[in-house]
Formats: sequence, C-alpha cells, structure tokens
Amino acid sequence: MQQIAKGIWKIVLGEPETFTPEHFRQFPVRTEAIEQIPVSRECRVSEEKIHWRKTKRGITVTLPMETQEDIYGFGLQLQGFNQAGRRRYIKVNSDPVANTGEGHAPVPFYISSAGYGLFVNTFRYTTFLMGTNSERGQSAGMTAENEAHKEFSEAAIYALKRAKEERKVIIDIPAAGGIELYLFAGDFMEIVQRYNLFSGGGCVPPMWGLGMWYRIYGGGDEKALKELAEQFRKEEIPMDVLGLEPGWHSHSYSCTYKWSNLFPHPQEMIDDMTAQGYKLNLWEHVYVYPKAPFYEKLVPYSGDYEVWNGLVPDFATKEACQLFEDYHRDTFVKQGIAGFKLDECDNSDYNPSNWAFPDSTEFPSGMDGEQMHMTIGTLYQNLIYRIYQQENRRTYSQVRSSGALAASLPFVLYSDLYDHKQFIRGVVNAGFSGLLWCPEVRDCANGDDLLRRLQTVVFSGHALINSWRIPSPPWKQTDIEKNLAGEPMDTAEYYTAECRKLFELRMRLLPYLYSAFVEYSHSGKPPIRALVLDYPEDREARMVDDEYLFGESMLVCPLTYEDGTSRSVYLPEGSWYDFFTGERTEGGRRVEVHAEYDKIPVFVKEGAIIPLAKPVTHVEKDTVFDITVKTFGEADGSFVLYEDDFETFAYEEGQNRIVIEKHPGEDVTIHSENGTMTKYRLVR
Amino acid sequence: MQQIAKGIWKIVLGEPETFTPEHFRQFPVRTEAIEQIPVSRECRVSEEKIHWRKTKRGITVTLPMETQEDIYGFGLQLQGFNQAGRRRYIKVNSDPVANTGEGHAPVPFYISSAGYGLFVNTFRYTTFLMGTNSERGQSAGMTAENEAHKEFSEAAIYALKRAKEERKVIIDIPAAGGIELYLFAGDFMEIVQRYNLFSGGGCVPPMWGLGMWYRIYGGGDEKALKELAEQFRKEEIPMDVLGLEPGWHSHSYSCTYKWSNLFPHPQEMIDDMTAQGYKLNLWEHVYVYPKAPFYEKLVPYSGDYEVWNGLVPDFATKEACQLFEDYHRDTFVKQGIAGFKLDECDNSDYNPSNWAFPDSTEFPSGMDGEQMHMTIGTLYQNLIYRIYQQENRRTYSQVRSSGALAASLPFVLYSDLYDHKQFIRGVVNAGFSGLLWCPEVRDCANGDDLLRRLQTVVFSGHALINSWRIPSPPWKQTDIEKNLAGEPMDTAEYYTAECRKLFELRMRLLPYLYSAFVEYSHSGKPPIRALVLDYPEDREARMVDDEYLFGESMLVCPLTYEDGTSRSVYLPEGSWYDFFTGERTEGGRRVEVHAEYDKIPVFVKEGAIIPLAKPVTHVEKDTVFDITVKTFGEADGSFVLYEDDFETFAYEEGQNRIVIEKHPGEDVTIHSENGTMTKYRLVR
Repeated sequence: MQQIAKGIWKIVLGEPETFTPEHFRQFPVRTEAIEQIPVSRECRVSEEKIHWRKTKRGITVTLPMETQEDIYGFGLQLQGFNQAGRRRYIKVNSDPVANTGEGHAPVPFYISSAGYGLFVNTFRYTTFLMGTNSERGQSAGMTAENEAHKEFSEAAIYALKRAKEERKVIIDIPAAGGIELYLFAGDFMEIVQRYNLFSGGGCVPPMWGLGMWYRIYGGGDEKALKELAEQFRKEEIPMDVLGLEPGWHSHSYSCTYKWSNLFPHPQEMIDDMTAQGYKLNLWEHVYVYPKAPFYEKLVPYSGDYEVWNGLVPDFATKEACQLFEDYHRDTFVKQGIAGFKLDECDNSDYNPSNWAFPDSTEFPSGMDGEQMHMTIGTLYQNLIYRIYQQENRRTYSQVRSSGALAASLPFVLYSDLYDHKQFIRGVVNAGFSGLLWCPEVRDCANGDDLLRRLQTVVFSGHALINSWRIPSPPWKQTDIEKNLAGEPMDTAEYYTAECRKLFELRMRLLPYLYSAFVEYSHSGKPPIRALVLDYPEDREARMVDDEYLFGESMLVCPLTYEDGTSRSVYLPEGSWYDFFTGERTEGGRRVEVHAEYDKIPVFVKEGAIIPLAKPVTHVEKDTVFDITVKTFGEADGSFVLYEDDFETFAYEEGQNRIVIEKHPGEDVTIHSENGTMTKYRLVR
Repeated sequence: MQQIAKGIWKIVLGEPETFTPEHFRQFPVRTEAIEQIPVSRECRVSEEKIHWRKTKRGITVTLPMETQEDIYGFGLQLQGFNQAGRRRYIKVNSDPVANTGEGHAPVPFYISSAGYGLFVNTFRYTTFLMGTNSERGQSAGMTAENEAHKEFSEAAIYALKRAKEERKVIIDIPAAGGIELYLFAGDFMEIVQRYNLFSGGGCVPPMWGLGMWYRIYGGGDEKALKELAEQFRKEEIPMDVLGLEPGWHSHSYSCTYKWSNLFPHPQEMIDDMTAQGYKLNLWEHVYVYPKAPFYEKLVPYSGDYEVWNGLVPDFATKEACQLFEDYHRDTFVKQGIAGFKLDECDNSDYNPSNWAFPDSTEFPSGMDGEQMHMTIGTLYQNLIYRIYQQENRRTYSQVRSSGALAASLPFVLYSDLYDHKQFIRGVVNAGFSGLLWCPEVRDCANGDDLLRRLQTVVFSGHALINSWRIPSPPWKQTDIEKNLAGEPMDTAEYYTAECRKLFELRMRLLPYLYSAFVEYSHSGKPPIRALVLDYPEDREARMVDDEYLFGESMLVCPLTYEDGTSRSVYLPEGSWYDFFTGERTEGGRRVEVHAEYDKIPVFVKEGAIIPLAKPVTHVEKDTVFDITVKTFGEADGSFVLYEDDFETFAYEEGQNRIVIEKHPGEDVTIHSENGTMTKYRLVR
C-alpha cells in the first residue's frame, strides 16, 4: 500500500495489465490541491481487509461491507442511485435497457459511507457485487431469528438482510493477471474531490460553452442554418452554440469527414456565424469510411475489424491520433470550428447486429476490443482536447462515451435514451465520478413537456436543445410532423416567450456557474452534484436521486411533465429560500411543492450569495457581465467570482478573484483581488 | 480433426478446460444410430478454414461465412430466429429482456446452411458474432460500388452488406486456454439429428407426461387440491398431472424441502391423487435453507456464497448429488411423486440485487460460478433423472435452465416471460438444440386470449396451465381479482366447454405425439420443429418463426389474441390439408387463413397418416387407446405407432411397432410386428 497523496493510496495485487486508465492519463495528479482536502471520516477499510485471488477467469477482490453502508458512483448511472445491495456491471453500452450498471460511461469507481472510495484501474468489464451475497453457511446462524418471519415477502426479506447480515463487496475482473486499486479517504465529498484532483482536477469550459446550445435539423443546409441563426438573434433568443451534421456519412454510416453538398461554402458559413457571435459544433463519429482523406494512412493503425464499413482507429497509437489531430486541426479547428459531438464511440450490445467492433478485435497497439470499448471515448476526447490546447482555445464539446479519470476533459455526455426521470438521475449521479451529463431536450409531447425538460436543461452543465429531427425550434411547434410541414402551433408565441425567459435565466446564472466550474478545477468539488455529497450524515439525503445542488448553494428540484404541478422535495436541516420569491422554508424534512408548468422549484441555502448577470444573448470576446448580487437569509456568506479571458488556457496561470462577502446587519462587500474588474460590472 | 462418428468430427485447439458439457455427459453417443443418418449436403467448412488464437481474454475462433448463409440454433432463443448477421451471447439469464442471445437455456451450438453445425464444448459465456463485422480494409474495395448508393438508409446498407461482403463467424470464448469444437455435417435436419444422437438421443416421456397438466394456486392446500382434482373428473376435464408448491420456502425464499402445514398429510394426499389417476409434480429450487434436513452435510459441498440465505449445492461433486438424490428418492419419489419443477437454476443478471451466485463463486469441485451458472440446471436434471431411472419409472418434469447435450433429459423449459409471439418462437427454436419448451398459459386478458394461448399449448411438448395465481381454473374466470374472490365469469360455461374440447384434442393426439418422441429417441429428429428443418432449400421457410411442425406431418400455425381472427401462413411446396375439415390447399406460397378464436389453423402434409385416439381424461397403467386412422390426400403414406408400457424404462429394450400403411386406391393396412396389440385398439 503506497501513499500517492494525502488520503490516497495505491495497492498493487498480482501483475497488473499494461493498458489501464492510469496508463493513458493525460493530466497530472493535483497533489498540492489534494493536500488541502481534509480527511474528516475514518476510513474503515484497510489493506489487510482487502482480499484477492487470481483465478482462471481473472482477479477477484473482496472487501468487507457494513450492514448500513451506502454506496454511490460507478459513473453515469441512469437507472440506479444508492448502489448498496446492487450488482454493477461496468461495461460500456449505448443501450442500457436494464439497471445492470452498463451505460455510456460506467466507471470502476465508487464511494462508500465507510469513509472510502475505490478506483479499480482497469478497462476490463468488471462486475461489482455491492453486498448482494452472504458467505456460505452464514444464514445458518440466522435461522432462529427468521422463525419470527413466517410470511414470504421480498421487501421484508430484503430489510432483514440489510439489518442482520454482514456483507461483502466482491469485485470480479476478467482476463487480468493483477490489478491496481486506488483507495481514497474522507467523507463522500472529500473522496470525490480527491478522485477528481487525482484525475487532474475538473475542467473549466469557456464561458460560451455554458450558454445556450442548439443542434439544427439533420437535413438542414447552409441556408437553413443561416435563417435559424438570424431568427434567434431577431427574436432575442439567447444562443451561443449551433450544432451541425455536416453530412459526411452519406455513403455509409461511417464518416468521410468531408462537407457534403448541403454545405458548399463551409469557410464562408463559419465566418458568417462567427461574425454573428455563434460557435459551431460538428457532429462526427469515430469510424472512418474509405473516402476519408486519411483513410489509407490509418489502415495500419486501426483494429482488425470494421464497423459500418469504416476503420476503427487505434487511438492507443500516436500515429492514429496524429492523423485525426492533424486533419481536424487543419480542416476544422483553424477554420473556426469550436467543438465536436463525438458520437458512437461506445458499444452496442443490445443491438443484435454489427453496431460495434468485437471484444476480440486486435489493435496494433496491443489493446483488445474489450479494452478499446472502455477507453475509445476518452482517447477520442483526449486528442480533440490536445488540438484546442495547442491552439490556445478552450472547447466545450459533446461525447457519447467516457470513463475513468475524465474530470479534466471539457466534454459532456448525452444519450439516445430519453426518460426525463432518468435524465434527472443522470444529472445527480454524474458528479460522483468526474463526469458531465446533458439532459438534452429532443422530442416533446407538448409545450408544457418542453418547458419541464428545458427547466432541467438550463439547470445542468450543458443547456442543449437537440432539434435534429425538426427544422423549426420546438417552441414554434412540438409536433414533429407539423414542424416538418412548417406549421407553427397556436401557442407558439406563449412558448417562445417562456423559453426565452428560461434561456435568459440560464444566461443570468453564467458567472455563478462559471465560478462553480473554477472551484471544480481547484478543489475537485463537482459543480452539479447529489445532495448526499453536501449532507453526508443525512440518512434521507442518501436516497434522494431527483434533486441536486447546482453550484454551491442552489438546490434544484425539477418536475417532469408526468409529475403534473407538484412534487415532494427533501430539504436538509437549515433554512432554505425560494430562489425566485425569497420565501423561507425550514428544512430537515420533506415538503410538498407546487409548481405550474412554467415554474421550477429552486431553493437556496441560508447565507448564500448569488451573483446574477444581466442576460446577454451570447458571449463575445469583449462581453462584460452586469452583475447584481442577490443574498439569501441572514447568516454569514461569501462568494468568489472568477475572472479571466473566459476562452483561452491563460486561466491556468492564474485568475482574478472577486470576493463578495456579507455579514449579518452589514452591507455586502465586494473586493477584487487585483484591484480591477474587466469582465464584470457591478450594478447596485 | 478426429472423426467421432459418421459426419461428426472433433477439433481440439490449445489446452481445453476440464469442466465442459462433454465432461458431464450422462448419456452415451448413439454411434450406430448416427451411422443411419445420411450426409446429403456438402460441408463447406473444414479444419483448415477454422482459425484460432489464444489471447489474454481467452480463445478466439473464426470461420468463414458466406453472404447468403443462414444460421439457426443457440438453444432457447425467444427473440431471434435466423441468426445470420446477429451477435449471440451464450449466457444463462432468467430475464432476457433484449435480443442478445441470453436466456434460460442458451446453447453454444448452431446449424448453418453451409452444410455444417458447430458445437463449442464450453460453459464459458461465449459470444458468437455471426457475420456482423467485416475485416479491416475490406470496405475500401466497395467504395466504387457504393457510389451509386447516395442516401443513407439502414435497411439498404444492410442489404448491400449481405449481398457484397464476405463475412466471418467470430467466436469469443473467455477464460479458456483451449477449446474442443464438434463439427456436424449434413443438411439442417441431419445436423440436428446428429447433434441429438451425439447427445444420447431424444427423451421418451411417459405417456401421462404428454397429457394435460395443471399447476394449482400457490396458496392452495390439501383441501383445495382435492376439490380441484374432483372438479376436473366431475366436469370431465382431461387432466393427468397436478403441480404443487409445497410451501417449503416459507422461512426465506430458499428451500427446506419439508411439507408446510398447508399439507399436513402428504402421503395420504399422494395416495388419494394416485387413486384418482393423477400424477403429482412438486415445485422446488436449488438453494438450500438451513432448516433443510441435509443442510449440514451439504455445507462442504456447496459454493462459497449463498443465494437467498441458502446454500448453492455443487452438483459437480458426487456428495452433493447423493444428498439430493437420497433425500428426494426417500422422501418424494418412493412416496409416489411423479416429477418436479426445478426453478431458479439459471442466473439473474437483469435483477440488480442478490438473485444469483457470483460468477466468481468457488465450488469444491473446482468449478467457478460462471461454469456453474451454465450447467447447474443440467446437473440438477441429471440427478433427478437418475432417481427415476433407478426406480424404473419415467418422469416428465419441468426445469428453468438447461444447456448443451440435454436432448435425452425429459425436462421441459418454461419462463416468467409471457409474450405469446415469443412463446411461439420458443416452440419453433427449441428443437434446433435438443430442448423442449412449454408455452404455458398463465394470466389471460379474457376468454379468447385463454383459447389462443391454449391452442399453442396443446400443440406443444408440454400442455400446461399454470394457475399459481388463481384458485379457480381460468376457464371459470380469467380476471385474477374476481377469481381470487370466487366469482365466476358469465361465459364460464362456454369457455369450460371450449377448453375441454382443446384438451380432448390433445388427448386424441397422444399416440401420434408419443410416436414422434420415440422417433426423436431413435433418429434424433425433434418431435416439434421449425419448418426449415423439413424444407432446407425453401428460402421462404428459412424466415418462418411463427409456424412449426408438430410430429411428422402436422403444420401448426397459432394465432395470438392480438392477431385477431386471421393470419398469413406459409405452406411449402406440395398439397396441404386442413386437419379439421380435410380441405386441400396448394402450397409453395403464403395464404391468408381465417380462424375464429375457437379455431387454430393446422395443416397436414400430402399422404400423411394420423392415428387419433378416443380421448381419455388421463392415462392409467391399463389404459388402452381406441384408435381411428385418419388419412390425408392420395399419395403413399405410412406411420408407425410405438407400443410399450408407456411408463418404465423397459422401452429401451425394444418396443412393438404397429405399422400403418396406405397406397393410392387401396385400403389402409395395419400390421403389428409382434402380432398383438395391448395398448391400442383399432376402431374402423
């Protein structure tokens, strides 16, 4: 057991494999920052309590588990929250139709109420059995107690199990001859902070990335883009980023990475959009069609099987990365493209046909298909990130698969799934494992469903409307057929106004959210996170998967359209204030909250300070935010606004801190540490 | 490549594992019977075309695959039929929610139109990629051809793939250091026959097993059983077997194997039922609760983790088998119990909690949990079978999981799933891999749904109504709440009469079906099977997964309630006769068939002879079937009725053959080879 940093230890069992998340680490461990994080909970797991054995199948590791132990994490889990008593199968899969643990971005990392977190440094499809089975013979001792329990009831038996049994964590890692484990100490939040700083610290998106996003109709051309862009500006719909499908999968579903004839003048188009203050994001995926310009050179650096008639690049080779980097830099990034949507880089087990490369695929690097499925999304992010880093421009992009140690990557996950409750759970869960998740709006049953989904979206890390199926925005027409036919709905004016209000709310929150990301970078604290991270001792908070903290002090409680106009909200101990009305509610209990379809319940912590910006329609190089400071309650409070150029990597060399403070009975004080303010202007 | 028997070869690659289906073989290869099966199709796969390599993950085997090659098999597949272009994951799983290949009884065996079948002798969770991916660089040569194909359409691309690409079979076997492959030659039917005879030949159920079955209400006691038994006899509802839940999971879900106080007089009850001509079948599962009489002795012969507070017996040890065998023989079989329903012996991956033992479980035999999941169902069947074999009584029983080389085991698979279309597909598919499947009736939307499901059931290998949720039969009341409340439906009389008719139809078919099973035993020909087995060159038949052959000459075309009262039926080349009316229809085409809810379309082959029995309510030791011979069409025809005691293993020493023959323009002739008839009586 080797100490890596304060509260972080590495344990090596057997002979670990070469290709692991650690092996491909792109960002250094933030040792100094980790030093600042306390260890305020006893770590109840130690090396001698961890057992392992090598089997023909791989490596099996066991750890003790307490009867009341709670477990969170495992990456982007859309269908489960508290994972105690559950089996998690950490396998990348684009169609997680059941609550198995699989998904776009499963991560072999969990946090436990027993004061530890565990990261298993592997790409193998690992199974975590979190207290599901007791050891042989253990039940014999329980027989007498069970006599009281004559009726068969699954719930009762489960409750009995939880109360009486000692449990175990069983970790089943196939194929490996050894494994590296990383143990993180602290309470829930400290463990997550340690893991994120161990990963390199959280990413800091450019300010424009936090604005509004819109992906245009898949069949749309240059003209459609131009018209839509003009419409948004004319109607004062805030919008920073427009996403396109360039049509480079017209021959097969694999990509040529060449503009189709829908976009005959790409440079002109990019320049025009840039002039209007838009950033452009291009859809693509990872499978390379024979007509791609770098196809021939890529052949020797790709896997031995194709997907959709396209090569599977081996991003574990420098050569494949270089081909992608050079082409993307020279053809898109230098031309002004601000980011990409990296699709299909996961796996597709529930599709019974050829939507993925075999696990047995051999790659020139020596990796196999199983390992590649678990990392191709991350390696793809890494190479796109490097291009922007070299150009000294930050990107904020999308990706459909991610994995371990990805906190520093400014890429947001999304899914073809669409259940709103699951999407909310995704927002709650992603923060446990250094991931960002977009509960994007696509189809809507009606205008109110649109509002409900947008409410979740504007309180997420990525405010995206994905209109790839409809030419007009959903606030003009939610019905797809009518939208395609160009018929607006009767209520278009009302919903346009309501959507504008929601987008303006998002724009108002930009400086607040940006600060949360800077904190993420410095301290590893997720900008958006489950309640249990801030209230680790609150038993009720340990079950809450439908509310989340947005930044340091806002508690967001979305409703789905199916919920109607009221929901139960859990407020932890203390006073809470309605973000919109300022009304106070005492916490430590559940309250029933009413919210019409145009309202989302948002509560603010006692003593909070929230800087609100006058909404801009988009963020420009010279944008200055007019800031109003809003305070909640009487308690002491403080907030730090971070100031930098909001778009280059210069922030890594230092930022200006504008400290806002409040003491009971006193006026708010604002102090800029470098004495000036260039990006903010205070409005009293 | 070692020849095992005519048209069967064994190929050993690397160093195979110890524990395999072959290792646990209970029945010898039927070499002489295999000798009788021709090889009428060129085997287009040979040893030199099979490539393999050992990797860190296990063994990968590849075989060539033709563009037009069709593939069937892989055990009980409820969601897929022709598996060309599909990925099949051969993993036991009780909740196959998606079409992945997983299920209660997946088998690593497939048959190909390229004149071969392949059995992979392993318990590892093997993935078969049946032509899903092309090799690196292959698409480059297709670019020119694809230029014609400008529009992206998934269907078009798939069609293009099938037409243009060379494909591969990729078999990915984890953990193993080597593998044994068995290659079977012939056309579809010959391959299946070879596989079944290699497995030991098909099972021959006792005649009573082919009669009607009914599982009583789960909360039912001795009195309820008695009343129901009397009701069936009084109302002349044919019924041979009654299934019970003895209540031995009252403490926990694991089993005590002791009668609960619902059944205070088991021997008296068994004797009473036996006197009325009923056979009793007892529900149980494999996890042993501490109060089971053989618990203490079993501890050292069980896996190192429990399931539902119960031990997992290691049936790969003689000791565990002996404990189960002795107890079951002495406590149930000798007392008169006719069979068991062996539940929960599969795996439960889609349930995120503790419904299964970990794959990493260690068993005293040296097997691991993965291997045990793939074989515990088969080993459980083996031991129950041995008890009845020793007692010289045949059983016909139920089991929820089975696997490779299981054709000789008289156990029928069932599922908690319930889609009627899938259940029909199960009937069609099970016969490819030596399995039997029960499309049991449980809940019904209404009386017509009941009839539709019963129609499939009476034309299956196991005619079971599973009323575990309702105290009265579904023909009295299909609504569960009202059934529980004791309220009959208004139409109870009508549906009782219709169900009686269906059950009598089943009883009429008993001698015919029994002969089909005897053929299964002799020649390996499945008694119930897909059309493609009898019509291997018929391209249309290769896609038909909703009709099946029942015995040698009946083509059954069930409708579901959702289908309404008509469906499309594919009739292969030749003349076909309506089983009920005798009306002739020319085949080689699809016909639209009308069938009211009380009718099921059944067609009979030209020249067929079908012996029909006067229906009995149940089969007794001294039952003699009154037989009427029904002929269809003008062509030459023959049928063999097999005569034995219908209940002991004496049939293995030889049976009397009663040969029924017909020539155009002549009367039917009947010839008993031993000169007498004891079990049949001809009615002219």
